[in-house]
Amino acid sequence: MTRQDLFQKILEKKSYLCVGLDTDLDKIPKHLLSAEDPIFEFNKAIIDATRDLCVAYKPNLAFYEAQGLKGWAALEKTVQYIGNEHFTIADAKRGDIGNTSKMYAKAFFQNMNFDSVTVAPYMGEDSVKPFMEFDGKWVILLALTSNNGSMDFQFSHDLFKIVLRTAQSWGTPNNLMFVIGATHPERFIEIRKIAPNNFFLVPGIGAQGGDLAKVSEYGMNEHCGLLINSSREIIYASNGEDFAEKARLAAKKVQKQMQEFLLKRF
Amino acid sequence: MTRQDLFQKILEKKSYLCVGLDTDLDKIPKHLLSAEDPIFEFNKAIIDATRDLCVAYKPNLAFYEAQGLKGWAALEKTVQYIGNEHFTIADAKRGDIGNTSKMYAKAFFQNMNFDSVTVAPYMGEDSVKPFMEFDGKWVILLALTSNNGSMDFQFSHDLFKIVLRTAQSWGTPNNLMFVIGATHPERFIEIRKIAPNNFFLVPGIGAQGGDLAKVSEYGMNEHCGLLINSSREIIYASNGEDFAEKARLAAKKVQKQMQEFLLKRF
Repeated sequence: MTRQDLFQKILEKKSYLCVGLDTDLDKIPKHLLSAEDPIFEFNKAIIDATRDLCVAYKPNLAFYEAQGLKGWAALEKTVQYIGNEHFTIADAKRGDIGNTSKMYAKAFFQNMNFDSVTVAPYMGEDSVKPFMEFDGKWVILLALTSNNGSMDFQFSHDLFKIVLRTAQSWGTPNNLMFVIGATHPERFIEIRKIAPNNFFLVPGIGAQGGDLAKVSEYGMNEHCGLLINSSREIIYASNGEDFAEKARLAAKKVQKQMQEFLLKRF
Repeated sequence: MTRQDLFQKILEKKSYLCVGLDTDLDKIPKHLLSAEDPIFEFNKAIIDATRDLCVAYKPNLAFYEAQGLKGWAALEKTVQYIGNEHFTIADAKRGDIGNTSKMYAKAFFQNMNFDSVTVAPYMGEDSVKPFMEFDGKWVILLALTSNNGSMDFQFSHDLFKIVLRTAQSWGTPNNLMFVIGATHPERFIEIRKIAPNNFFLVPGIGAQGGDLAKVSEYGMNEHCGLLINSSREIIYASNGEDFAEKARLAAKKVQKQMQEFLLKRF
């Protein structure tokens, strides 16, 4: 999916919501556990309930790997079920020496047809570039994350800014996005100066305390430039039989706010 | 496996070799491709041929994930086949917010019974700690990697030293190792001052140009403190029917050098 396509979808749907599929057998409704593939059944219902309200889905690889073979199978089915109308993100935080990153790229882009993968920057350019060698695919590079641990190294000599600046020469706004956590809303102003045109994947709204209004105000650019993720607040809005319906309501609530912010701008 | 157990195995086997299982269907001998599970058949033969010469095995997750479900199944069988007499490393370079790292830890420690997992430090303490909450398991934290990209951020304001120092308070030499690439042998002296007691997992010998003698001289501590990895030079020493035999010869060559370095010290 191109940047222009993604922007078009945002305008059509009046939403820049990404729904995070952190599907956990301990948290999904009990009545699904007797299904042949409870993870997929849950995802399918969540996707059906939110398809028109979001522009992206982000399965979190850890939750699938924690279920071993069954988890991996459910992930493959989920990506297929999402289809081509949404931007898909393999939230995998990968990154290794060149020949190894190439194998991860093969796993996510070639075998599973994800549009993008989240990549950790620590190992530098040759760990990131192999993901960029797939036409039409995206790297979403960690820059400033939403967790408390972001304070440990990312602010050390402003490492996150060094990452943002250095990575500008590795890719373009057409194949490179950055992860910028919603828990640092005031930082979006200076970050937009370094990376004016890249899309940002923004975790940390909701459970982690990020502020949608501030992030939208400070972070939006002329192609919107934001994909704001919500996982737990949407997919676990209820753990009863009404879980899909409640997930839709939670997604709708966020989408309505996004619609307002978009209307102010476009 | 405890640090003392690992040191005992090193002394018994006169080896601190880790064999990297970067098993690639494009590189294994052609005659194996007709087997029901070529990846496992290859690994089984390599393990049988090297078991007495090494103390650790390190499957590289990317190579298994690139084969999808079949790869994941082959990985599970491989870890089981290695058994409990070797230190096992899930070379996965994971690291994410706390609740997600916990899921990765579950995947590698609980479901697959690996002894250790490689973890990327970028997201800080709360991304690393969940891996340390499993008794008897190890984190191997990236500090100074062997690839060219290590120059991009790891030397920026000596980030690798900041990582080494900061992580000292997260774990102990009994549950925390560091990745230190063999391509920076002169750095081992200063690194040993910061982390005198931790084991180092050392990639980069062989294909990447690292120097076994220098690394052993500068890096060894009183519990040996080194696990030196070799992947391609051993497992792809031949791609004919004699691949296992040639892998054994290649491993034997490295083990003999290690025996000399150990004899000088212990």
